[in-house]
Amino acid sequence: MTGEQKKKDNNTVFIGKKPSMAYVLAVVTQFGDGQSEIRIKARGRAIGKAVDVAEIVRNRFIQTAMVGEIIIGTEEVAAENEKINVSTIDIQLKKQETK
Amino acid sequence: MTGEQKKKDNNTVFIGKKPSMAYVLAVVTQFGDGQSEIRIKARGRAIGKAVDVAEIVRNRFIQTAMVGEIIIGTEEVAAENEKINVSTIDIQLKKQETK
Repeated sequence: MTGEQKKKDNNTVFIGKKPSMAYVLAVVTQFGDGQSEIRIKARGRAIGKAVDVAEIVRNRFIQTAMVGEIIIGTEEVAAENEKINVSTIDIQLKKQETK
Repeated sequence: MTGEQKKKDNNTVFIGKKPSMAYVLAVVTQFGDGQSEIRIKARGRAIGKAVDVAEIVRNRFIQTAMVGEIIIGTEEVAAENEKINVSTIDIQLKKQETK
């Protein structure tokens, strides 16, 4: 749990320090693998990038994807001798069935 | 409409370059003035700060405030010779009636 959190859920993409397009590709790939619902999660400074990733996916790559639930929260993170609060975001993208 | 957007809505706080606590104070003041619903809006790099502001308000100052609708989007911004896309966020905070 040190540094970037790398937990690997099937339908979750954690936003870290890579360029946005790396995460866009991860989301697009998971939709391509048949996932119909993906969660994009980030905390702290990566929050803006999480919004960018969701927007790029649905505007440029997967027009049938729509934003579902968006959850914001706060996590306590241990830093040196103190605990600091870090904001979090969790953006759900859902792929609509095309008829 | 150049630079930081300064439109003044009654129940809207636009997040810019000031420290987070300046915007926390603005939100808390508007709730104190009797608003029951406030929208915290930001774009680009200020998006993370908007989430911080919402979280600080409801965790530290107004325990009866809850997060309502969160909307993300994309705006086209004119920059030098090109148009660039900037992500936006709009976080609704609602104060619950205490009985």
